[in-house]
Amino acid sequence: MFYLIGLGLGDATDITVKGLEIIRKCDKVLLEGYTSILTVGKDVLEEYYGRPLVLADRELCEGGIDDILQEASDKEVALLVVGDPLGATTHTDMLLRAKQMGVKTQIVHNASIMNAVSCCGLQLYNFGETVSIPYWTETWKPDSFFEKIVGNYSRNLHTLCLLDIKVKEPTEESLTKKIRQYMDPKFMSVQEAAVQLVQIIESNPNSGICKSSKAVGLSRVGALDQRIAAMSLDAMQTFDLGPPLHSLVIPAPNLHPLELDYLAQFESAN
Amino acid sequence: MFYLIGLGLGDATDITVKGLEIIRKCDKVLLEGYTSILTVGKDVLEEYYGRPLVLADRELCEGGIDDILQEASDKEVALLVVGDPLGATTHTDMLLRAKQMGVKTQIVHNASIMNAVSCCGLQLYNFGETVSIPYWTETWKPDSFFEKIVGNYSRNLHTLCLLDIKVKEPTEESLTKKIRQYMDPKFMSVQEAAVQLVQIIESNPNSGICKSSKAVGLSRVGALDQRIAAMSLDAMQTFDLGPPLHSLVIPAPNLHPLELDYLAQFESAN
Repeated sequence: MFYLIGLGLGDATDITVKGLEIIRKCDKVLLEGYTSILTVGKDVLEEYYGRPLVLADRELCEGGIDDILQEASDKEVALLVVGDPLGATTHTDMLLRAKQMGVKTQIVHNASIMNAVSCCGLQLYNFGETVSIPYWTETWKPDSFFEKIVGNYSRNLHTLCLLDIKVKEPTEESLTKKIRQYMDPKFMSVQEAAVQLVQIIESNPNSGICKSSKAVGLSRVGALDQRIAAMSLDAMQTFDLGPPLHSLVIPAPNLHPLELDYLAQFESAN
Repeated sequence: MFYLIGLGLGDATDITVKGLEIIRKCDKVLLEGYTSILTVGKDVLEEYYGRPLVLADRELCEGGIDDILQEASDKEVALLVVGDPLGATTHTDMLLRAKQMGVKTQIVHNASIMNAVSCCGLQLYNFGETVSIPYWTETWKPDSFFEKIVGNYSRNLHTLCLLDIKVKEPTEESLTKKIRQYMDPKFMSVQEAAVQLVQIIESNPNSGICKSSKAVGLSRVGALDQRIAAMSLDAMQTFDLGPPLHSLVIPAPNLHPLELDYLAQFESAN
């Protein structure tokens, strides 16, 4: 059996009882460590679960998945994923591979940023499609996500922006070498996202979204030190929301009175 | 302290460890029983938690919330909510009231249908805004949600349709009487939703969505007896997906190859 278990957001205790019971009976437990992170590390989880964890990086999850699934054909194998296990395409792909190989699967759901974002008071059913904001490089500055934000905004919908994560990414130089070298992990902050967004806004003066448009920054959602701050995109460019993970929301132009009241408490804090 | 604790979907073990620990230390634990249901009842939860639960209906949550919050000002009070606690507006409102009254709050997130819907293989970031489909009556047949489905469809986005739930709803006759009488609980099936949708489609022949458009029905998401079935809206009108809760998805017209492959397994079953 192959289990995909969501760890939720926050710390070790955000796993469901169902998930924890499965971990404790499994022969092998892998921890997926490149699409998101908790506020605690692998060592804390190992102690809490009372089980050793094998760190599963992108290479293992994408290239070595057949070996893992093969093992799951006669053993109990779990892959732990931060948030909900089906937030990322990779895991849907794994389930399809498992089916093709005749390996049974079970999914244990949990909270993800896709629903927990509602902690800022913006109502989930007023969110349009979610976008991802990637880190720009000197030569690669994609902005296609902006069109989606504008599309949501023009229909009076909020946009959740998932911010880029670079964990165990090979350096550009090493791509041509035999020995892989990896970049230090980095997590896009709401500040960095706002800087990129303001650049796009300045190149698209008629989008309806401007520097003074409201933005809501969220950090460490689900943890006790979770922070939420609402301000203009302009102000967000220089605002420090503390340690990762961060997410950004571009609210709809016209908010429900309850949404306005709720957001107000995060404005006063700045 | 006032805790809002998500129970997730499925059964008693879908609560998080964090949530369970809080329940066990609370002075009073309320179970919100009118916006959604688990696959197990109050008695099963009470036995599992080892705690008596007070059933909180709409009247208590909306009218009597100040008394509950007053109690939470010097005691530990938890309100348990199926799914994620911030899926419904009512709970955001409670948190605002608590702040006004100076009562501390903590939210414990969990899976909700808003993210667990990805179990059908449609990618979460390709969903547009969520809609609710209400039960029609002889004299009241609202269809404003259809415009939103069409808006998503035309932008090649999926729509999650939350289906109506009637729990402890006063009968129409009793509204004018002194003694309240309540209807039997009822939960809209994907079949009932499809029947209403097809009627709307027939009155809107140029919407782009027709009877042969694809629909995905989901029942008891997160439970071991979860079912998913993909077929035309027309066929869905006579399809029985078993016991509640049900949800319906109207997929985007053009699907990603991985989404197509994944959905295919739910088509063969019909």
